[in-house]
Amino acid sequence: MEKRVTVLAGDGIGKEVTDAAVVVLEAVAKKYGHMFRFDHQLVGGAAVDAKNNPLPEETVASCEASDAILLGAVGGPKWDHNPPALRAEQGLLRLRKQFDLFANLRPVKAVSTLIQSSPLKEDIAKDVDMMIVRELTGGVYFGTPSLYNDEEAVDTMPYSRPEIERIVDKAFEIAMKRNKRITSVDKANVLATSRLWRQIVDEKKAQYPEVEVRHQLVDSVAMSIITSPKDFDVILTENMFGDILSDEASVITGSLGLLPSASIRSDGFGMYEPVHGTAPEIAGQNIANPAAAILSAAMMLTYSFDMLEEAQAIEDAVYGTFEDGYFTGDLTKDQPLGTKEWTEKVLQRLQA
Amino acid sequence: MEKRVTVLAGDGIGKEVTDAAVVVLEAVAKKYGHMFRFDHQLVGGAAVDAKNNPLPEETVASCEASDAILLGAVGGPKWDHNPPALRAEQGLLRLRKQFDLFANLRPVKAVSTLIQSSPLKEDIAKDVDMMIVRELTGGVYFGTPSLYNDEEAVDTMPYSRPEIERIVDKAFEIAMKRNKRITSVDKANVLATSRLWRQIVDEKKAQYPEVEVRHQLVDSVAMSIITSPKDFDVILTENMFGDILSDEASVITGSLGLLPSASIRSDGFGMYEPVHGTAPEIAGQNIANPAAAILSAAMMLTYSFDMLEEAQAIEDAVYGTFEDGYFTGDLTKDQPLGTKEWTEKVLQRLQA
Ligand SMILES: [Mg+2]
Ligand SMILES: [Mg+2]
Repeated sequence: MEKRVTVLAGDGIGKEVTDAAVVVLEAVAKKYGHMFRFDHQLVGGAAVDAKNNPLPEETVASCEASDAILLGAVGGPKWDHNPPALRAEQGLLRLRKQFDLFANLRPVKAVSTLIQSSPLKEDIAKDVDMMIVRELTGGVYFGTPSLYNDEEAVDTMPYSRPEIERIVDKAFEIAMKRNKRITSVDKANVLATSRLWRQIVDEKKAQYPEVEVRHQLVDSVAMSIITSPKDFDVILTENMFGDILSDEASVITGSLGLLPSASIRSDGFGMYEPVHGTAPEIAGQNIANPAAAILSAAMMLTYSFDMLEEAQAIEDAVYGTFEDGYFTGDLTKDQPLGTKEWTEKVLQRLQA
Repeated sequence: MEKRVTVLAGDGIGKEVTDAAVVVLEAVAKKYGHMFRFDHQLVGGAAVDAKNNPLPEETVASCEASDAILLGAVGGPKWDHNPPALRAEQGLLRLRKQFDLFANLRPVKAVSTLIQSSPLKEDIAKDVDMMIVRELTGGVYFGTPSLYNDEEAVDTMPYSRPEIERIVDKAFEIAMKRNKRITSVDKANVLATSRLWRQIVDEKKAQYPEVEVRHQLVDSVAMSIITSPKDFDVILTENMFGDILSDEASVITGSLGLLPSASIRSDGFGMYEPVHGTAPEIAGQNIANPAAAILSAAMMLTYSFDMLEEAQAIEDAVYGTFEDGYFTGDLTKDQPLGTKEWTEKVLQRLQA
């Protein structure tokens, strides 16, 4: 297959980690007989500096012509005091909106050789392998009216049937590629939006008889993520609950710096990026950990290109490299590898 | 001092655990020269059975004539299929509303001899001692419009200045009785209600120069509760965030069954109750753990009666009894004590 990928390195360590991901994708292309065409464009602070716009037109045009976006990271203190329209993060927010990327996927997977850095006991954290599917463009963060004066404030939490249906469909599709279990999060005992959410999940269930569906209240899920995280396969949630739960879940395996993410739309087009930030203090020193960017590239293969075997090969190479005891400096003080040298170990496994 | 307490045992194990708390309060009264008058009334399922009303008029009248309410637990499968107005939990919801109990206090404190049952690593969970102060009567669970049809649903999240001011005042008062640090939770980067919340917290700060105040986004707090729970003293939060975070925090020390709670109003009147439920399957067998009810009674002394020394004496007796290695059957298989026998150990320490 031939696929076009717009690479948006962004700021800070974004360049070196996306470089590593591109090298890995090229190795996969060679091994499996694909062709990936990469178009590098500016976003975030780098785009503000060069074009006075965190999301330049050329970048949007390139993304429109592509099959997926691979993003590094955006932001940094340099742009934090700019007027809102010229802040680095605006590039990301506008990309999500422009391309209607309503489904945010956040996998959390334990790495056996890193489990000792989990705040949870090892027997609770080991073998955790969950996927949080979060609605990203609706709910209380975007509802109107949203108003605020000295005496009162109001936010509005709306959800329409089409908004819920498309994220629920995504969650079922994803569950079918995983262990076929969905925990749908809501607060149906008090929220009207949760009752519509629960109703639609129950309606969709009929189309996916193989998938086991459980409804669980958000406060109860917040407990279970700590006490029995292994019980989860796919967690399906609206925007605000997902904001809280995905961050809560991100710390339980002790591997926060390794987490990839995806933001996708119904047709499979998506943007893939590490959860970590730009880390400007270590940028350009060949010490950043590229694992999250490489795992984000693997998600791109799974969710945008439906190349499941190729994605699995990347994941196996990354986790295998950790199992072999090779780490970058964020994970070990004992003979850490540089960004490029660690990526080389992944490539060796991939080519073996 | 003389104080009147309405005791609402409720359902299931509610009777035996409030009985234990009353015995402990009587011992405190004797030791410190107070007089507590207890008036026992019905609530919840027991009140539905006897009076066809989960909150009978006599109960309300007794509470109105009292200085505080001590509650056991309400609910059980027997009443779950009743029409809404005759469900056991309605008794609790109507009590909160009737008495304007807007401030929910949920302490989470590690017990050194039980820390091995925490899902967190011991060095992270030990010495945790936080108090979650949650606004209980406003926000998205009660806002209008709240509507739901087949095509769309809306919830509304309103907060007024007086609603926020009174809970913020409570949090500062409580912080002054503790370690004088407040973490105020919000999502001020996206919610209008959070911006008003943050503004009012900043205004109130001036009145309490000794209290250190930090603003932290709700998703970040959800992470910190797991990674560094010791960093918290008082967590101040609106209703829904508090619903999620208080349940999340309740599991981190491994002592969920021991947690007390309070729901109070501005003048100090309050309702005190264990976080645990009615456990109908073990009711009446003298095996229930009364620690959460006894610790709830200690909170009553602190927050409604301002008897700080007496409250501390109860807490010391309860934690001392655990340190001595005495436990009820929920916490040990090795020679567990019965409800009454364990309470007797607490009394011995209190009277020593
Ligand atoms: Mg978040
Ligand atoms: Mg809750």
